[in-house]
Amino acid sequence: MALTDQELIAGFINIIGQEHVITNSSDLEPYLIDWRKRYRGQAIAALRPASTEEVSAIVKLCAANQIAMVPQGGNTGMCGGATPNPTGRQVVISLQRMNKIRELDASNQTITVEAGVILQALQEAATAANRYFPLSLGAEGSCCIGGNLSTNAGGTSVVRYGNTRELCLGLEVVMPNGDILNSLRSLRKDNTGYNLRDLFIGAEGSLGIITAAVMKLFPVPVAQWTALVAVPSAEAAVELLNRFQAGASAQLTGFEMMSDESLALLKHYYPALASPLAGPNAYEVLVEISDYESEEHATQLMESILSGALESGCATDAAIASSLAQARKFWDMREHVPLAQADDGPNIKHDVSLPTSAIPTFVATCNEMLRKKYPGIRIINYGHLGDGNLHYNVAGPSSAETESFFVNRSKEIQALVYKEVEKLNGSISAEHGVGQQKVDYLKGHRGEVALNVMQAIKRALDPHNLMNPGKVVSL
Amino acid sequence: MALTDQELIAGFINIIGQEHVITNSSDLEPYLIDWRKRYRGQAIAALRPASTEEVSAIVKLCAANQIAMVPQGGNTGMCGGATPNPTGRQVVISLQRMNKIRELDASNQTITVEAGVILQALQEAATAANRYFPLSLGAEGSCCIGGNLSTNAGGTSVVRYGNTRELCLGLEVVMPNGDILNSLRSLRKDNTGYNLRDLFIGAEGSLGIITAAVMKLFPVPVAQWTALVAVPSAEAAVELLNRFQAGASAQLTGFEMMSDESLALLKHYYPALASPLAGPNAYEVLVEISDYESEEHATQLMESILSGALESGCATDAAIASSLAQARKFWDMREHVPLAQADDGPNIKHDVSLPTSAIPTFVATCNEMLRKKYPGIRIINYGHLGDGNLHYNVAGPSSAETESFFVNRSKEIQALVYKEVEKLNGSISAEHGVGQQKVDYLKGHRGEVALNVMQAIKRALDPHNLMNPGKVVSL
Repeated sequence: MALTDQELIAGFINIIGQEHVITNSSDLEPYLIDWRKRYRGQAIAALRPASTEEVSAIVKLCAANQIAMVPQGGNTGMCGGATPNPTGRQVVISLQRMNKIRELDASNQTITVEAGVILQALQEAATAANRYFPLSLGAEGSCCIGGNLSTNAGGTSVVRYGNTRELCLGLEVVMPNGDILNSLRSLRKDNTGYNLRDLFIGAEGSLGIITAAVMKLFPVPVAQWTALVAVPSAEAAVELLNRFQAGASAQLTGFEMMSDESLALLKHYYPALASPLAGPNAYEVLVEISDYESEEHATQLMESILSGALESGCATDAAIASSLAQARKFWDMREHVPLAQADDGPNIKHDVSLPTSAIPTFVATCNEMLRKKYPGIRIINYGHLGDGNLHYNVAGPSSAETESFFVNRSKEIQALVYKEVEKLNGSISAEHGVGQQKVDYLKGHRGEVALNVMQAIKRALDPHNLMNPGKVVSL
Repeated sequence: MALTDQELIAGFINIIGQEHVITNSSDLEPYLIDWRKRYRGQAIAALRPASTEEVSAIVKLCAANQIAMVPQGGNTGMCGGATPNPTGRQVVISLQRMNKIRELDASNQTITVEAGVILQALQEAATAANRYFPLSLGAEGSCCIGGNLSTNAGGTSVVRYGNTRELCLGLEVVMPNGDILNSLRSLRKDNTGYNLRDLFIGAEGSLGIITAAVMKLFPVPVAQWTALVAVPSAEAAVELLNRFQAGASAQLTGFEMMSDESLALLKHYYPALASPLAGPNAYEVLVEISDYESEEHATQLMESILSGALESGCATDAAIASSLAQARKFWDMREHVPLAQADDGPNIKHDVSLPTSAIPTFVATCNEMLRKKYPGIRIINYGHLGDGNLHYNVAGPSSAETESFFVNRSKEIQALVYKEVEKLNGSISAEHGVGQQKVDYLKGHRGEVALNVMQAIKRALDPHNLMNPGKVVSL
């Protein structure tokens, strides 16, 4: 017979202690709502285990009582993937207390961390060992590596180091039945059977709970050199990218783009972060080069590629950061575009990716189509051009109309934008994941066969649909 | 009612035409045996479809008649993964006629190829478009990219570019029921649901048949600079690796190690390939640096790192290739070690990987243990040190005893070596896969939970166990 809620809670207390079973409504509140306050749910309790064994025991108790579980890290997701549903019949399992760095092997360039380690703490642990952990994103001060893995987070250095997926060598996962899957090996090569690791990465907790991971580390660059480059068009931006790829190869560690409207918004809300380049420019690109020799070599490489670009016309102006402070300012510009947007009010967000060669066509077609249909709209187009990832966001004609435009036009504009993305074989979720936000788009995007395969895997590993149900793949 | 074999063959002929349904025993022979002649099977027929639709139709016919299928590419695998079983109730599906390059996007740095494209043809197509495809291995003149993907092949540039897995962006797969899964997108970022791609990569055709793939391309290096470096110990070899990682970062594109006994064997069978360094040396390391600026810059970088290594004592001697011919000779040395072994007779092979930091311990412990137990044995230890991957092969005391030593000692020596590998959290198959050779080791290596998960996935996607049954994961 199933336990009553009180018996269940007594069971959880028995596993992790009273103070880590959160049930009173004010303490529970932060676990029930996402940081952007778009998704809200209810829960029997939020549970804060401190070890893999405790997670396993909780999962076994939940499985025995058919209680659905919602794993949660720093709760900084964009798609509601870590928010419980409104039934109040789920539990949130927070991994935040699992925050130990288990091992750092500087020679092998690996670090073994628990899921609740905050990204910034991981970066700092690497730095302290004279190594570099490249994953970097806006939420790094509060997001956890378990969440980064579960959503396969992207960020600003994917152009060189790949997504979180590419940075992971091994995982420890608590399966939906409570079994502990230990694949925490620090190996660059291991061809022994199916690659389970990459199935859990990006599954947003719907196939099991990631409790620990082995991540790759890298040597620390001797110098990082940053430039802000004006380009006359999206075509020119892609040509500039190709020039840096050819000339700097893996030394190209950042390539971010901001459209003129993004820069105008930035200037309005953060005047101190206005671009130092004479404008307006169709786009400005932030380029970062990392060097393992010297500052001189980095400067020389940057200048040589830029002078070729200026000559060819794909760049029309450029400012090379002359100090760490100025380099920081260029990055601040890029990072404050989304903040300026938030200040401006809600906007219709699209986290899309395309082959970089298709980006000029996408931008031209989509801009024209939308501007014609919705005169006066502002297209805040910026993002990780080096990875083909655009945050192509649409805001109403003026700040005053932003809210109503958002409420009335979101569905239709998203449908229009996604249609253009699909035409060019892009993705409707480049780095933010699916969560509960994009579940209904999955079949249209991935196709029926892929959805069938995903559902078959979900059913095979989580036959009672208890692990973050309703997220990613609906059954 | 199931079809007779004759009706079945008529069905295949109906799909792909008489000349591509191979049934007569002499034409069938090469499809039934692996290239090392270790595994031999029987088959109803070998089928040579030319399109994804033909593969799909064949699979549907097989599925309807419960006929098991063995996908095969260039048939150059090391573990019998592409060889049918002896029952004569299976069909071999050869992808060799699916050899079209469907698209090359130089700006996006991607190429879309069919599974039967020979690796070397892929490399050449990239070169013709002024791009570089880095996957490189001994069999590149005959292996197919579909097989490289199915076995997640490694090779000599993994230290920089990763395994075949890391080079792939999208796949087209014919599922065990004949459905065509099309995920051929040329995207660096796509977080829309479960990552199915990496499940099929390395599954050795046991979850479906890879028919096409989108692979990454890279800019062509301006210069590649090669050196042969003598090191006094395995510890020194790892220190040398760390120095090159710190100093050259991603410009380090090759780091291969050969033990003194490997070099002696090489000298014996290929005197022209004897090392130019004064010996004996505990190990000699082949280092390759790729440069995107100039030959001068590459030389300078190589010399600067090497002089530091010589000073520190982790290197005792070094020869930098002064010509392309000499660089080619250094690579020939490395590539001829396995050939010299083959000339010498059978040996007990181990394709293992370890954290690079654990390699000195592994080599010291394992060498001592084996030499004590089997006096006079030769340990031909060489491999991709940069990835922690050793081909740690054991041969009998003299060439005369090689055959009998191999026959009598294989099982026990493999068990001893694998035990040391497991102690240090290594892998018993770094790059060769599982095939039929290592199926029985899987549970011990990956653990019961992982095996359960793999079996659940296999059952979910291939419920009738028709897709390369008995390979990788046995049910």
